[in-house]
Amino acid sequence: MSFERMWRDLAPVGRDARSGGYFRQPWTTPETELRAWFAEECAARGLELETDGLGNQVAWWRSGEGRAVLTGSHLDSVLDGGAYDGPLGVASALAAVDELRERGVTPARPLGIGVFVEEEGSRFGRACLGSRLAVGATTWEEARELRDRDGVALGDVADGADLDWRLAERVGCFVELHVEQGRDLVDRNAAIGVASGIWPHGRYRFDVTGQANHAGTTRMEDREDPMLTFAMTALAANKQARLAGQRATFGRLDVAPNGTNAVPSRVTAWLDARCDTAEALEELVGEITRLGTERAGRDGTALTVTAESVSGTVDFDPDLARRLAADHEGGDWPIIPTAAGHDAGILSAAGIPTAMIFVRNPTGVSHSPEEHAETADCLAGVHALADSLERLLA
Amino acid sequence: MSFERMWRDLAPVGRDARSGGYFRQPWTTPETELRAWFAEECAARGLELETDGLGNQVAWWRSGEGRAVLTGSHLDSVLDGGAYDGPLGVASALAAVDELRERGVTPARPLGIGVFVEEEGSRFGRACLGSRLAVGATTWEEARELRDRDGVALGDVADGADLDWRLAERVGCFVELHVEQGRDLVDRNAAIGVASGIWPHGRYRFDVTGQANHAGTTRMEDREDPMLTFAMTALAANKQARLAGQRATFGRLDVAPNGTNAVPSRVTAWLDARCDTAEALEELVGEITRLGTERAGRDGTALTVTAESVSGTVDFDPDLARRLAADHEGGDWPIIPTAAGHDAGILSAAGIPTAMIFVRNPTGVSHSPEEHAETADCLAGVHALADSLERLLA
Repeated sequence: MSFERMWRDLAPVGRDARSGGYFRQPWTTPETELRAWFAEECAARGLELETDGLGNQVAWWRSGEGRAVLTGSHLDSVLDGGAYDGPLGVASALAAVDELRERGVTPARPLGIGVFVEEEGSRFGRACLGSRLAVGATTWEEARELRDRDGVALGDVADGADLDWRLAERVGCFVELHVEQGRDLVDRNAAIGVASGIWPHGRYRFDVTGQANHAGTTRMEDREDPMLTFAMTALAANKQARLAGQRATFGRLDVAPNGTNAVPSRVTAWLDARCDTAEALEELVGEITRLGTERAGRDGTALTVTAESVSGTVDFDPDLARRLAADHEGGDWPIIPTAAGHDAGILSAAGIPTAMIFVRNPTGVSHSPEEHAETADCLAGVHALADSLERLLA
Repeated sequence: MSFERMWRDLAPVGRDARSGGYFRQPWTTPETELRAWFAEECAARGLELETDGLGNQVAWWRSGEGRAVLTGSHLDSVLDGGAYDGPLGVASALAAVDELRERGVTPARPLGIGVFVEEEGSRFGRACLGSRLAVGATTWEEARELRDRDGVALGDVADGADLDWRLAERVGCFVELHVEQGRDLVDRNAAIGVASGIWPHGRYRFDVTGQANHAGTTRMEDREDPMLTFAMTALAANKQARLAGQRATFGRLDVAPNGTNAVPSRVTAWLDARCDTAEALEELVGEITRLGTERAGRDGTALTVTAESVSGTVDFDPDLARRLAADHEGGDWPIIPTAAGHDAGILSAAGIPTAMIFVRNPTGVSHSPEEHAETADCLAGVHALADSLERLLA
C-alpha cells in the first residue's frame, strides 16, 4: 500500500531524537528535504509540478477539462510538533491518486495536489503564509519584511516570483484532508468527519516594558517588573477563556535581558486566541488587554498589544460538505466545526468552494510529539479522500 | 586624572548601541578585550601580572614583605548591564595605585589588584565563579561541567590550570570597591560607605513540565499548561517576598517549544531569592516552592526545584570596616548592609578579612543600562580607596 510506504519514508525527516517531535520549519533542511520528496513522488506518478518562488507546489494530473479539483495540505510543522498535522493530507492525496487509478477513474477535470509553505507560521509568525500569498490575501511587499527570531527577513530566504496562482480562476473546489485536532470523532465513534467551518482566531503580541534593575538590592516596592504584568495577564487570559468557553494561550515568550539576577526590562508574549464568533474573539482579546493594562498600571510597566495575524470566521461550502458526507457505507460522515486554522480557510475566504475531511485522533492531542492517528484510520482517510475526489472529478 | 582616561577607554567595550547596556560575558570578545586592557594598564604601571587558566588575574605591586593587601573587582557584566558594576572597582584600584605613588607612599607589604572572572554568573549560571575557584569553594572537576545556554561546557572555553591561588596564605585582607546597588547612601547624603555584610541569597531552577497541545482545539479544561503554573508561582514569589520584606525575582525563562499556537510542554524559570537571614531565605524559597507545587497539582503539571547556587550570610570583618570608616574629613563613612553578592563575600567566607567600599548611586538602579554614578563620586571613591589602602599598607 503506497500510503504506508510513504509514511515510513517521511517518519525520520526533521525528527528530534530526544522529544520524538518534529522541527520542519520552512526553508530549513528538513523542509527542503520534504519538498524534494514531494517532487519525486509526483514525478513517479507522472504528475506535472508547478512551483513558485516561495516554495508553494502544485502537482497536476492533467485530465479532462474545466476548473480543477484541488486537494493537498502542508509539510511544515510547529516547533516540536507531530507527524500528522499537514503531511497526512499530502501523503493521503498521493495515495488517493494511486487508488483512483487502480479504480480506473479517468477524471473529467484536472486534479491538483497542493503543498503550501509555512502553514504553521512557526518561523515568520504569519499562519498560512504560503496560501495567503498564493491567493493574494497577503502581498509580497508586506510579507518580504517579516522576520524570524534571528532577524532573518522572508525576502532573504525566498523570492516573490510567480506567486499569483490565479487559483480562484483555475480551481473549482479544494478538499483538504487533515488529522483531527480534538476529540469530536472519538466521541462520535467515527473514523472520518467533514468540517463545517473554522473558528475565528488570531495572534496578538503583548509587549510589556518595565525597568531592568538588580534582583537583590531593589526593594519589591521600588520595582517596575514586566514579568509580573505578564504573569497576571497569562492567568487572566486562561480564566477569561475558561469562563467564556473559548480558547486563549500564551505559548511563546521572549524576555530581555533574561538574566537570573536582574529584574527584566521587557517581556514579550504572544497570545493565541480563538472563539466561536468574531464578536466573542474581539471581546475576549479586549478583556485580556484591559486586565493586562490595569495590572501594568499597578506594576508601573507599560503594555502594548499588536494584532499580528487575525482570521475571521470560515464557513466551508455547506453543499460541498453535505455532498461529500452523504451516502457512505456505515452511514453519513459527521459534519463538525474546528478551532484550528488551515490553508483551507484561506482558500475558502478567497471564494473557492472548500471542504475538509478529518481523520480521527484517538487522544485529540496535536501540535505535540504525541499527536497520533491509527494506521487503519489513516487508510480509511485515503479511501474517504479517493471517494470524495471521485465524486468531484466526475 | 588617570581614572577618567581609563573610564573613557572602557566605555565602548561590549556596549549595545540600542539599549546602551553592556554585554561583557566571560570568554566573549568584549571580555577578552577588557582583560587585555587590564594587562596593558598593569604593564604601564610596572605591576607584575599573574593569571590562571580560567582568566582570573592578579597584578602585584611588589613592595615590603608579609601578607599582601588585595583590592580589585570584576570586569564582566550581567546581560545588558551597567558600566559600573565591576569595572568601577578595577579602574579605581589602578587609579588608587597612581594616587598612592603621587603621595609618595612606599607600601610596607605587597599590594595586589585582582580581577575575578564570571562574577555575575551570566554565562555559566554560577555567580562569583572565578573567586569561588580561586579559593577552592568550587572544584574544577565540578565547574568544568557547567554549561552555558548553547550547551557549551566551561571546560571547553577555559582550563583549570593554576587555579589554586593560595589567597588565604598570601593575602592579609581584601578590599573591594563597588558602585552601590541601592539608595542607602543617597538617603544618607554620603558619597562613600562601607559594607557590613551580604544577605544570604541563592538561585533556584524551577522546571515545570506539562503536555504540549494545540492552542486552538484543546479545551481549556483539558490542558496541562506549565505556563499557568509558572505565572502563579511568579506572582506568589513577588507577594511572599513583599510580605516578608525580602527579595524574590523571576528574571530568566526558557519555554519549550516556545511556539505561538501550542500549549508549551515545559517552562523553566530561575528564581533569585535574597533574605536578611539564612532562615528567612529557606522559609521564603520553601513557601514559593509549596505554592508552586500546589498550583502544579491543579494544573496537571509537575514542578521540580533545583538549587543551583546558594550563598550563606556574609559578615565582613567588623574591625576592618570600622578601621576604614573612621576618622575622615567630613565624618565617618556609614556602614551599611547589601543584598548584592560579590567576590568579597567569597573571599570573606574563605577566611580572608574583607571589606567593601561603596560609591553612591543616585538612583539605586543596577544590573541595568541606567546604572550610574556621578564622576565626582567616582573620584571620591578613588580617594577613599587610596586612603584605605594607605592605612592597610602601612
